[in-house]
Amino acid sequence: MFVVLVFLLLPSTKTNTVPEVDSSKKKNVIFMVTDGMGPASLSLARSFRQHRDNLAIDDVLELDHYLVGSSRTRSSSSLVTDSAAGATAFSCALKSYNGAIGVDPHKQPCGTILEGLKLQGYLTGLVVTTRITDATPAAFSSHVDYRFQEDLIAEHQLGEYPLGRAVDLIIGGGRCHFYPTSDAEGHGCRADSRNLIEDAQKNGWQYVGDRAQFDALQGGKNISLPLLGLLADGDIPYDIDRDSKVHPSLAEQVKVALTALSEATKDSDKGFFLLIEGSRIDHAGHHNDPAAQVREVLAYDKAFQEVIKFIDESDVETVAISTSDHETGGLVTARQISPSYPDYLWRPEVLLNSTHSGEYVARKVFNYKHKDDLKKFKKFIAEEIIEKDLGVTNYTSEEIELVVENAASVNDVLYVFNNIISVRSQTGWTTHGHSAVDVNIYAHTNSESIKAKLLSNKAHHGLLGNHENIEIGEFMASITGVDLEEVTTSIQGTKHSP
Amino acid sequence: MFVVLVFLLLPSTKTNTVPEVDSSKKKNVIFMVTDGMGPASLSLARSFRQHRDNLAIDDVLELDHYLVGSSRTRSSSSLVTDSAAGATAFSCALKSYNGAIGVDPHKQPCGTILEGLKLQGYLTGLVVTTRITDATPAAFSSHVDYRFQEDLIAEHQLGEYPLGRAVDLIIGGGRCHFYPTSDAEGHGCRADSRNLIEDAQKNGWQYVGDRAQFDALQGGKNISLPLLGLLADGDIPYDIDRDSKVHPSLAEQVKVALTALSEATKDSDKGFFLLIEGSRIDHAGHHNDPAAQVREVLAYDKAFQEVIKFIDESDVETVAISTSDHETGGLVTARQISPSYPDYLWRPEVLLNSTHSGEYVARKVFNYKHKDDLKKFKKFIAEEIIEKDLGVTNYTSEEIELVVENAASVNDVLYVFNNIISVRSQTGWTTHGHSAVDVNIYAHTNSESIKAKLLSNKAHHGLLGNHENIEIGEFMASITGVDLEEVTTSIQGTKHSP
Repeated sequence: MFVVLVFLLLPSTKTNTVPEVDSSKKKNVIFMVTDGMGPASLSLARSFRQHRDNLAIDDVLELDHYLVGSSRTRSSSSLVTDSAAGATAFSCALKSYNGAIGVDPHKQPCGTILEGLKLQGYLTGLVVTTRITDATPAAFSSHVDYRFQEDLIAEHQLGEYPLGRAVDLIIGGGRCHFYPTSDAEGHGCRADSRNLIEDAQKNGWQYVGDRAQFDALQGGKNISLPLLGLLADGDIPYDIDRDSKVHPSLAEQVKVALTALSEATKDSDKGFFLLIEGSRIDHAGHHNDPAAQVREVLAYDKAFQEVIKFIDESDVETVAISTSDHETGGLVTARQISPSYPDYLWRPEVLLNSTHSGEYVARKVFNYKHKDDLKKFKKFIAEEIIEKDLGVTNYTSEEIELVVENAASVNDVLYVFNNIISVRSQTGWTTHGHSAVDVNIYAHTNSESIKAKLLSNKAHHGLLGNHENIEIGEFMASITGVDLEEVTTSIQGTKHSP
Repeated sequence: MFVVLVFLLLPSTKTNTVPEVDSSKKKNVIFMVTDGMGPASLSLARSFRQHRDNLAIDDVLELDHYLVGSSRTRSSSSLVTDSAAGATAFSCALKSYNGAIGVDPHKQPCGTILEGLKLQGYLTGLVVTTRITDATPAAFSSHVDYRFQEDLIAEHQLGEYPLGRAVDLIIGGGRCHFYPTSDAEGHGCRADSRNLIEDAQKNGWQYVGDRAQFDALQGGKNISLPLLGLLADGDIPYDIDRDSKVHPSLAEQVKVALTALSEATKDSDKGFFLLIEGSRIDHAGHHNDPAAQVREVLAYDKAFQEVIKFIDESDVETVAISTSDHETGGLVTARQISPSYPDYLWRPEVLLNSTHSGEYVARKVFNYKHKDDLKKFKKFIAEEIIEKDLGVTNYTSEEIELVVENAASVNDVLYVFNNIISVRSQTGWTTHGHSAVDVNIYAHTNSESIKAKLLSNKAHHGLLGNHENIEIGEFMASITGVDLEEVTTSIQGTKHSP
């Protein structure tokens, strides 16, 4: 007798072959925000880099390899969101009003994914290039009615609210709201007289305030958590202006955070949650500064590359999701510069020739000592600023006049400089505020089950295709088993009104 | 006794479970182009429709459900493509220069996917809302050095080139280049004296020239192929202006084409190739006309819905890919309208109140008989046009003056009207030409194997994520086994120079 028993365990669809995400399994969740980066920022930065490095047309950004979908960005109060409502959509997975920091439309504090994971035993971190008290990091780690309440945001971030300390690692700018305005060295802008950095150190935080101290962290291997790294009073300079002897890059910050957090969780059954923000892409949008923006996007892309490398080398189930809260500036990679029908082109070489941001040169002009000597001042503007810093030689006397007229205000004069670059590169802008275009979603994971969920286009389930921004928060809660409503109950009583 | 127990624990990933695409299997390939539609057009049209129909924020366009990736659009000659190079990237799967219609960078005719499938025995069709001799349909069905050679394009489309007739169904506008300029009724603009429509009818084409004849096609059930449907001398009117008693919608055109082509191939072992273009989204971009554009996008979305329905009901393996050649106008869903810091909003209600395109009202003004009576003319502009047609009541005397000053040119005065709407809706534009932002790729299929290939993000293989536009042409050739280089050899000798 001859018997052959063939068991064909043939899965008919992928959903059968890949197990559901196990929310209790040890995980790292890395959430990355390109503040103010819309679709046009990508083509601008990609073509700039291809031009600069003489690359082929299919040599693309690291990000481009990980595109999975797009996010609809409106807030509860407007078709055009601000960064506060945008970040709250991610952190609390709900739509709130422009200005809302971790509070719902009724101004009630809402539990965030960072807090939910901290309650589960994850370690948590915030890495940004702007003030740590600015909207995006704030919406994950504090609860206030309006984003301008940065003094209170700093207190929450250090643990002064019902949950206690929820953040284990902070690297960014923004010392300002940790020091009183009365601070002798002029670092501070708090309305009260508190020195939060001294308080934090008393409470066990390791404080890092400059490049030397940052370097002493040895790439993250030499850290005692909690870590408070505040590397600038306000924003860390734009990457185009950054002196690497004074400020680390975003990629360096990220590397330190990833090393420290993975090291500190290596013996835990819980991983870490890390928020990373390329904060100042948004500022370059507000400033209408294309030369600064392409460098901000490329600096972010390098940080993203660090994250990809980390994920591919990690034994822990790890996912990174990268998206924007909104677009800023109404950036267009084309601009009609005469009434006659426009040529179809834009000029990356103009952005390459410009070696400083409008913000940087505006400060230089503002601080110039000899403004009274108009001839000398104009020569300085023409030769030192426009020719040398901006790389423009075909400027007009009208443009020099405009600089002189606006020289009393850094904000006004930076628009003049950025317009000089934008017109010549044929880069268009329609606002100094935000716009409502959908923004891209990028993702990567080393987990088959998370990948299968990511690549579902079902609303409120996966992230393939077009989704509401709140679905990104829902996704992070869902794969980690965080019940955000439960977290909300644990932060009731938070002081949040101005 | 001899027992063999074979446990085949097959397969661990989806790629193993789904068979490769069988290129010889009967197929329908539907390629859809939203000419000039960038990412911002989507959020504009989606929010407009939510506002108009009082829909929830997650009530999205039909297209939104099928987003799979984005396409990089540059041509061989510029970072900003035109529609000719854009369409040639899809049809021949190669980068060519701006202006190129089915020719390579050396101005040599290149075989197109439409021709390749015709050679295999597929039936083929072109459905557009602009002139059928315009760049997008031309690049699939003709070969000329420059897009302005529309007389020659029309000849190729009817079969006057080495391949003979490659197109079985044409529905669109553009009688102009089929009639001589000397045509008594003024339809024509050919430089020679030929009447191509008479010639086509002699050669067996069924001709359809108006709504009554279109209706006699009985939704596609009563057609004798080849069909030449030319429903306007130039473009079919914008959907916002369209009189449904005179012109069918794009969705109606599509339904006729799908019914006719599927009926005609039902007993064949080959299916059909159909190109569908929402052509005039681009025109609304060139005109900077947001009120016309949202209606064009919604009209296209309805046509897309017809395609989805067809696919879901078809027994034949069918795939539809929808993308844009480029963005037009530098559309931004936000516009700063004063020097002070802008509010974060845009106003869909302004687009809803406007019931005609700038083009339509510009012609009305151009044709107005009593321009000499300035008081009467201004009253007409204010009351008939701006109040009644555009739904704007807060116009200024300066705006009326601008209309009067530009009334001698339809093109100039339509910009004035469109600016009245754009400023009030806070819609931004940066050019009357094109821009370089990546455009979206949407796709749907009833085939598991085509779906698996679509949802691969590998360059030159699938369409998930970010890709070069030529990869879309490669994809269509790959799933159907078309060797485009072989097709190229069969069209050598085509007359293509001006």
